[in-house]
Amino acid sequence: MKVDAQRKPYLCHLQKPHLHCRYSLLACDYSLSPSPSSPQKYPLLANLRRFPLHVFRRKPSPMDGAEAPLRTALTEKQTAVDAKADTVRDLKARGVAGAELDSAVEELKALKLEATEIGQRLQSAISSNGGGGDGAVSREAFRQAAVNTLERRLFYIPSFKIYRGVAGLYDYGPPGCAVKSNVLAFWRQHFVLEENMLEVDCPCVTPEVVLKASGHVDKFTDLMVKDEKTGTCYRADHLLKDFCKEKLEKDLSLTAEKAAELKHVLAILDDLTSEQLGAKLKEYGINAPDTKNPLSDPYPFNLMFQTSIGPSGLSPGYMRPETAQGIFVNFKDLYYYNGNKLPFAAAQIGQAFRNEISPRQGLLRVREFTLAEIEHFVDPDDKSHPKFKEVADLEFLMFPREEQMTGKPAKKICLGEAVSKGTVNNQTLGYFIGRVYLFLTHLGIDKERLRFRQHLPNEMAHYAADCWDAEIECSYGWIECVGIADRSAYDLRAHTEKSGAPLVAHEKFSEPREVEKLIIAPVKKELGLAFKGSQKMVVEALEAMSETEAMEMKGALESNGEVEFNVCTLGKAVKITKNMVSISKEKKKEHQRVFTPSVIEPSFGIGRIIYCLFEHSFYMRPNKGGDEQLNVFSFPPLVAPIKCTVFPLVQNQQYEEVAKSISKGLTAAGISHKIDITGTSIGKRYARTDELGVPLAITVDSTTSVTIRERDSKDQIRVSIDEVASVVKEVTDGQSTWADVQWRYPAHSTSASGESSHQNEI
Amino acid sequence: MKVDAQRKPYLCHLQKPHLHCRYSLLACDYSLSPSPSSPQKYPLLANLRRFPLHVFRRKPSPMDGAEAPLRTALTEKQTAVDAKADTVRDLKARGVAGAELDSAVEELKALKLEATEIGQRLQSAISSNGGGGDGAVSREAFRQAAVNTLERRLFYIPSFKIYRGVAGLYDYGPPGCAVKSNVLAFWRQHFVLEENMLEVDCPCVTPEVVLKASGHVDKFTDLMVKDEKTGTCYRADHLLKDFCKEKLEKDLSLTAEKAAELKHVLAILDDLTSEQLGAKLKEYGINAPDTKNPLSDPYPFNLMFQTSIGPSGLSPGYMRPETAQGIFVNFKDLYYYNGNKLPFAAAQIGQAFRNEISPRQGLLRVREFTLAEIEHFVDPDDKSHPKFKEVADLEFLMFPREEQMTGKPAKKICLGEAVSKGTVNNQTLGYFIGRVYLFLTHLGIDKERLRFRQHLPNEMAHYAADCWDAEIECSYGWIECVGIADRSAYDLRAHTEKSGAPLVAHEKFSEPREVEKLIIAPVKKELGLAFKGSQKMVVEALEAMSETEAMEMKGALESNGEVEFNVCTLGKAVKITKNMVSISKEKKKEHQRVFTPSVIEPSFGIGRIIYCLFEHSFYMRPNKGGDEQLNVFSFPPLVAPIKCTVFPLVQNQQYEEVAKSISKGLTAAGISHKIDITGTSIGKRYARTDELGVPLAITVDSTTSVTIRERDSKDQIRVSIDEVASVVKEVTDGQSTWADVQWRYPAHSTSASGESSHQNEI
Repeated sequence: MKVDAQRKPYLCHLQKPHLHCRYSLLACDYSLSPSPSSPQKYPLLANLRRFPLHVFRRKPSPMDGAEAPLRTALTEKQTAVDAKADTVRDLKARGVAGAELDSAVEELKALKLEATEIGQRLQSAISSNGGGGDGAVSREAFRQAAVNTLERRLFYIPSFKIYRGVAGLYDYGPPGCAVKSNVLAFWRQHFVLEENMLEVDCPCVTPEVVLKASGHVDKFTDLMVKDEKTGTCYRADHLLKDFCKEKLEKDLSLTAEKAAELKHVLAILDDLTSEQLGAKLKEYGINAPDTKNPLSDPYPFNLMFQTSIGPSGLSPGYMRPETAQGIFVNFKDLYYYNGNKLPFAAAQIGQAFRNEISPRQGLLRVREFTLAEIEHFVDPDDKSHPKFKEVADLEFLMFPREEQMTGKPAKKICLGEAVSKGTVNNQTLGYFIGRVYLFLTHLGIDKERLRFRQHLPNEMAHYAADCWDAEIECSYGWIECVGIADRSAYDLRAHTEKSGAPLVAHEKFSEPREVEKLIIAPVKKELGLAFKGSQKMVVEALEAMSETEAMEMKGALESNGEVEFNVCTLGKAVKITKNMVSISKEKKKEHQRVFTPSVIEPSFGIGRIIYCLFEHSFYMRPNKGGDEQLNVFSFPPLVAPIKCTVFPLVQNQQYEEVAKSISKGLTAAGISHKIDITGTSIGKRYARTDELGVPLAITVDSTTSVTIRERDSKDQIRVSIDEVASVVKEVTDGQSTWADVQWRYPAHSTSASGESSHQNEI
Repeated sequence: MKVDAQRKPYLCHLQKPHLHCRYSLLACDYSLSPSPSSPQKYPLLANLRRFPLHVFRRKPSPMDGAEAPLRTALTEKQTAVDAKADTVRDLKARGVAGAELDSAVEELKALKLEATEIGQRLQSAISSNGGGGDGAVSREAFRQAAVNTLERRLFYIPSFKIYRGVAGLYDYGPPGCAVKSNVLAFWRQHFVLEENMLEVDCPCVTPEVVLKASGHVDKFTDLMVKDEKTGTCYRADHLLKDFCKEKLEKDLSLTAEKAAELKHVLAILDDLTSEQLGAKLKEYGINAPDTKNPLSDPYPFNLMFQTSIGPSGLSPGYMRPETAQGIFVNFKDLYYYNGNKLPFAAAQIGQAFRNEISPRQGLLRVREFTLAEIEHFVDPDDKSHPKFKEVADLEFLMFPREEQMTGKPAKKICLGEAVSKGTVNNQTLGYFIGRVYLFLTHLGIDKERLRFRQHLPNEMAHYAADCWDAEIECSYGWIECVGIADRSAYDLRAHTEKSGAPLVAHEKFSEPREVEKLIIAPVKKELGLAFKGSQKMVVEALEAMSETEAMEMKGALESNGEVEFNVCTLGKAVKITKNMVSISKEKKKEHQRVFTPSVIEPSFGIGRIIYCLFEHSFYMRPNKGGDEQLNVFSFPPLVAPIKCTVFPLVQNQQYEEVAKSISKGLTAAGISHKIDITGTSIGKRYARTDELGVPLAITVDSTTSVTIRERDSKDQIRVSIDEVASVVKEVTDGQSTWADVQWRYPAHSTSASGESSHQNEI
């Protein structure tokens, strides 16, 4: 069974039409994941010795299965202890002493010892399931060290600190901002430029009608409860989850049955209706965490920031919760721009806003964040991709539906095979999965802590053909960072219906074709009588049937007069009778095919990717004296906030001038860098820049040549002043590795040159 | 006197504390500007023949002074016409005929002719003053042609078009988005990287307390009137302005006195209080434009989009109206990050939001826009800049306060001189003016249509030391695109006061210094009695006095017992008596100096710059047949949305493969490009890409070499396939000019190669 720290799909639109489909059950699945143990890949250091890794590495965990027998054993042992204690008390009361009492006391002591021992084993079984304990402690310590460094060096900080901040809002300071802008620049290069996508830039302020059509106004909600006395708001599912987790982790006296019940609640948490959630809170006697006051019943809270457009107060608007809608509403223009040809992709990078009830987990669940979204429009009848072969041989961790449902771990699968076997629905979806894998690993995400998890059927909306999340493991568990969904024609149809503008594509036939057309004609009068308020949902579901489904229904209606029909949007099956719908096929001559394109949507949570990258890049190593741990971010040059630093070894005008002229050369070469002319010891200056993840440091220790030091290996080479900018450019542009240049230039050792004796590491 | 189409300072914070300081009187000043006549500079074409310029060029306009005498002459002539008409009627009534009547009729005709002629001269004088007429018509036609092309090719389009749009919100489509991202990338290179600025990235959602401190919650308003029956809202000053302009342009019977009055109203429009504005609307009988219904009295409307943070509904927030506040509130951390050293600059690029009452002028006045702002923090006692000499020799159009107030035109001034003579307040401000000039002209802004206009004293807040706007001339007049203000310590002080966090800098002395400290101690009790509600403003003004001002006041108080003291925030002088303030100097030993840094703020309206760039780059030229005008955007490669196109001359597999392999090479070199393998004629394909401003086109007409055609000259060279990517990179990266490569490679003429005869321009 799984525990879920990260529930709301961050990136997909799945949530909109189907509240019950919004949550992933397994997003924070510790027990099923393989144990990552190989060190991070770092291009600069390929084939070189590895630096010491003091980062948290999770141990392989015993299966969840150990826990239940232990709970039963503990309950039984506790009963035995209680019984024996009664015996001892009874003997004492009756005045019995001597051997009989002594032996009973000895037995009681032994039973207590056994109970304690079982209790310890149980505690450790719980901990290793990711629930808490030692694992949680070391994860927590690792995160604290990383986050302290990140905040101290202004990678990111809580916004508006001098006014005591606002939960869920963060500022990127200089190095974080540089990392973010490097990540976005690479995203543009990797997706927009290489794939010839049409990038657009739409406003954040969005009128209500657009988000009404997309479903956000009605469905983009979380369930909330209020402290009945203070009015403080909480997410209802958070309270129930926290209660269950705490009980499971800390209450060793839980019976195996009770433990199983709580775990079941955690597993179905996201499928609970408002009423069910309220009933559970009552059943468990859960009150407001801070005041212990009683709580209100749960009720939905819309997560969009609302505002008003224009001065009249009559035009409600919202800050967009995602960037995708700006693309959908422009489909017609973009299709025209692309020469009325499919497929094509549009892309957008921009801010999105979600007014979270209780933001948690730092950069992972925030109220404003940067999304980068791609909408790839494709003919639903042809989802092949001409460049699929370029990614077909990639092999990486995938976590298909079947593995999840049968309790198996994620496994390495070759992408080409995953598509040919139908595990991944189609080539285009597969192509994007491959491109996302390349994007993330290029940034520096550890391959072993990256997996592609397929959505379970109950996580997906009825219209979605298939959906995979790129999940990255960090100290918070497996975090959904990119969603890659085949959303079929849902979004374009929704806007076509609401706006009246036909968002469709055309395929002209070279000569007219006779086509058989499926006609599904719901009889609204009959349906209205039968289903009243639910009529619209039934009509939509009928019209959305595939040809096979429709012909099956036709057959069933003809033979039985009625049929059970599952309506996802109602969450139940209804009875359809013959008079409610007519299904037929008609032959027609057609000159063109008019259809609503399918859309395949890779959607990137940039802040989440960056946070995971921070954790994957962070490590500590002892200083030379061994009495202090120094922090390092092993960013690849591609994302490093500053590519190199320039230090005059000692404060002296000559060296400073050399440093300044090197700096000029670096600026001309477009390399972001920093000069540090403070008198601080060179070791301290290295340590400072290691903490910012600067890959290379240039130390000016003569007027003709300098040393270049690599961050992770701490190796140094000597390079002449004329060449230094081009060497740095080569390495930071990725044309050469550090190993390549190390081979070309002489190593610099502190012993060889007396002059450089100050260049010791601290 | 001038008419102002562009009033609200877009970029400066001046507006906040002083509503009456918000508007620039001369922002749309046609008559004072020099006539731009030299062609645009275009790096690709340096020293080459110029392409025909079919763009609108404004003629030098006669001085405003011609208008008033003509109005008087017309009134007099009209009186003469009326008198003569009376005579004729009288003669007829009396039955007089023959020579006497004939001569009177002739005289009447002659008078009418003269009146007509004066009327025409008056109309033309009005037009050439920028008020309307022919100039306005050709500006309008030019703008229509440019905007049609921009919208048709999706540079930008109104947002949410399928839902009939929202005024003041625009989407950038693919080419516009590429231009924008090129402009921002160059901004980062030119400012952040080259100047080692600290870039930050703060949220748009901002809690109320921050914007309360900055003054936006109370003062960031426009005056609005409502149609009393329909509730439609209008900007009060817009209605008054439109009324005055229309009268002046269309009503030739206006007396010179009345005309002067209306012009005076236009000039002081921005200084009018709510009551005065309401009185003027009543006096002129101005009603709602659409319905002619009566209007409400004017009342302030806050321009910020309001929202609510978190679920409680108790934490009001706003979408930030500028990015600067995010920097100010982080001053302490940024100062620490910079090693507690001044000066340093922080920068931010991001969205800003202003809920305009009635958005106008396309991209120029919108409800959401991208700002790029720099806050350069500097010791108020030392505003020198070490790199000033790098820009000191620049010479460009400046429009100092004195020239504006004495009716002289803007003139070319050497920046070094402007600073040394004190026209520009200090070196740092001057340095940024120079850097902004280089930035804009590099992007392709026409030097002759760019000027730096100094704010008049009444436009500036009392705390501002000096302020210059980079104004770019386009079809809407002179548009404020960058504001460069020395805001002294105002913003940091405001946040220090509100938050209690001291946003100050320290200068440690090497040894303790004896300093004389100015102590201004307002006696609040006395001031409260004397000024009641205005007390706070008087206290602030007293405390803000410079040492000189304070010592002068001290002297005056000692000799006269009282003194007149001008309080900007009250807009009037008050009487200060001796018992209201004590001014003294104290000697103290100090180990460090603690002070609030001054901030110099260059603030860029990216959308406005881009729109002006579109207009400056747009021209039309006839097709080969001369029967059609083709549109061209002459973007420099730096900002061009696509750097080059690849066309196989004819549809043929061999050429297509060559085209694809060239495309691969271009992608590898990081050059954004587009393949067009449609069978359209090559001329049409050239025309299509000229319309997108693509600098170079590669035509594949053999399997070994290709032609490269330059957009503006239409010249072609032959280059071998192996070299083509590197040649394109050289030119689009700016390492070589087109002239350079044209000299190195053979020209391609259609007559020389039979094979290439299809490459004609259309």
